Amino acid sequence: MMRLSAATLMAAALTAPALADQVHETEQANFTVETIAQGLAFPWAIDFLPDGSKLVTERDGRLRVIEADGTLRAEPVEGLPDDLIVIRQGGLMDVQIAPDFADTRQVYFSYAQGTDDANGTALARGVLSSDMSALEDVEVLFRANFDKSRGFHFGGRILFNDDGTLFLTLGDGGRYQDEAQNPENHLGTVVRLNRDGSIPADNPAIENGAPGVFTFGHRNVQGIARNPATGSIWTSEHGPRGGDEIHILEPGNNFGWPVVTYGINYDGSIITEERERPEFVQPIWYWTPSIAPGGMAFYTGEAFEHWRGDLFHAALAGMTIQRMEVHGDRVIGIEDLLTDREQRFRDVRTGPDGFLYILVDDVEGEVLRLVPAQ
Amino acid sequence: MMRLSAATLMAAALTAPALADQVHETEQANFTVETIAQGLAFPWAIDFLPDGSKLVTERDGRLRVIEADGTLRAEPVEGLPDDLIVIRQGGLMDVQIAPDFADTRQVYFSYAQGTDDANGTALARGVLSSDMSALEDVEVLFRANFDKSRGFHFGGRILFNDDGTLFLTLGDGGRYQDEAQNPENHLGTVVRLNRDGSIPADNPAIENGAPGVFTFGHRNVQGIARNPATGSIWTSEHGPRGGDEIHILEPGNNFGWPVVTYGINYDGSIITEERERPEFVQPIWYWTPSIAPGGMAFYTGEAFEHWRGDLFHAALAGMTIQRMEVHGDRVIGIEDLLTDREQRFRDVRTGPDGFLYILVDDVEGEVLRLVPAQ
Repeated sequence: MMRLSAATLMAAALTAPALADQVHETEQANFTVETIAQGLAFPWAIDFLPDGSKLVTERDGRLRVIEADGTLRAEPVEGLPDDLIVIRQGGLMDVQIAPDFADTRQVYFSYAQGTDDANGTALARGVLSSDMSALEDVEVLFRANFDKSRGFHFGGRILFNDDGTLFLTLGDGGRYQDEAQNPENHLGTVVRLNRDGSIPADNPAIENGAPGVFTFGHRNVQGIARNPATGSIWTSEHGPRGGDEIHILEPGNNFGWPVVTYGINYDGSIITEERERPEFVQPIWYWTPSIAPGGMAFYTGEAFEHWRGDLFHAALAGMTIQRMEVHGDRVIGIEDLLTDREQRFRDVRTGPDGFLYILVDDVEGEVLRLVPAQ
Repeated sequence: MMRLSAATLMAAALTAPALADQVHETEQANFTVETIAQGLAFPWAIDFLPDGSKLVTERDGRLRVIEADGTLRAEPVEGLPDDLIVIRQGGLMDVQIAPDFADTRQVYFSYAQGTDDANGTALARGVLSSDMSALEDVEVLFRANFDKSRGFHFGGRILFNDDGTLFLTLGDGGRYQDEAQNPENHLGTVVRLNRDGSIPADNPAIENGAPGVFTFGHRNVQGIARNPATGSIWTSEHGPRGGDEIHILEPGNNFGWPVVTYGINYDGSIITEERERPEFVQPIWYWTPSIAPGGMAFYTGEAFEHWRGDLFHAALAGMTIQRMEVHGDRVIGIEDLLTDREQRFRDVRTGPDGFLYILVDDVEGEVLRLVPAQ
């Protein structure tokens, strides 16, 4: 009897939970989780079109359309650049519709370009055809000036500023970590560009800095967002074990990777004993243990009153949507959401409907949204 | 076979883990856990005597001695006040040796005094006899000016300042939460006293404030420590569900409980929709979910290099020793330690040997210490 009972308990513990219409009761909001698209290959980013449709990137190299009625269109959008390469962490990455999309129908996207042995992060834009079947007049606006090999640490997030510029985040390429301290190339930097890819005249003067470099000493920045309360630009980056970090970007900052870090190598060995030096800017947050942050967003909707102004992270290895309560530019609390789903999350965004949209990172990936419970 | 296997797994999962000499590998330190005393009834606080012995309070109303050789003396220290009452959360609480103990042999302690129907928090001091068998010349220095009933929310932590004053933390008494907004009584306050119990001339002027009130609008403050990097005074307090908070105290602050809070009632009902108001000082941290913080300490030893300046919390319901990385007066990261032990922790202190001392809150409570692994 005891054994039967224990076995029954065990079986129950191993059964996957989470009904679609289950109410999640959390500290500042109760919500249900809706699955609005399935069968996407490692979805990486989502953006929202004025007519209620959505664009979703698949890292495997496809740009997909979710129609306004919720249908996932089978045919991907045509017209992606020929030099796009799908290689491990790289492929089609971010997508952002232009702030003036209503007039221009321009769509910006980041991707890995090149070959197995010589590749890097690129930024392009195209004009979305009226039937959303193709990107036309595609222009490559930026290519990282370093041909790296292998498929690691591409960065790849785009953020539009309200001054006509944009940020593109980059990574250190994995095996090239020392290059993060060398501003002559784009590895381990965040660049600031005009929307046509030219370099803003008021970019910081960094000695020997490559075109566009705004900050450097990063490892792999995959989250960027503007704090609506202060206007400051926040980034999140994958560190080594125990070293994921959040930074606030000021022009010309060097964040110190890999000379200083709170992390250690994944095998437990030490990268450096140094945690800080006067010449490096310190993180405003780091995660222990690592959560492996993907995209991040400040919640700006109306649907969740107590979430307004909070920062949300989509975490991969950490398998959490992490909410941070933010006052001014200070993190004052954290809460993990959706941990019961045991899924890797790639991106999180506030939808124009005020719901929180979430991408599940999987070969059979999903788009979820959180909707207030009645 | 399957059932047997599952039952075996289940049995393994239910077995208490943690060998005494197991090395815990954490992000900034590797350590072993040593059990240095057992069989204490809800130990609440520990302090360290110059000769290597230690004083430990049991909430059940006994002051115990751990000899310099590690022996837990069977006979408690005699001489505690007659009006000490052991009632649920109250009893003998904090113990702190005076900064001038080497000359005076004075020991300060906090306790619940009174009866089931009329009780409150008190502060006293006595002179420890040379054989540590008794406290002599015991003087009661402070009694909360409100006779509450039942046994909840006593606060009770003591912190010595370097200006000759001390802080004593108090609670709202549980059923009297509205009194936390009324500075005429001591419920929900932190008081600042001279070491003889008199009121410092430079205490803040609070309208209708009871003698000694330094800050108010607290719920139940059970952690207090000075940040060695900045000199600021940090407190931690139990909130309702989701509302445990850390504050930095400035003279006269009102922290807003129960008018504003991030927490909700334990049954899920709302206390208030308000999170902030201009007249209240905001927390610099709050926990979601609650961890139920007990004592806290900034690590000031030499044994753990990367922990220096970090803040440690002993958590009861949260069953964690939580490390906070602190820069200046900003929390920039957290890490949970000892969660595998599944024990309630009441207090954490840096020992003079640089080891981290921890009290386990249980009817068969323990004193642990963390020692660097070789």
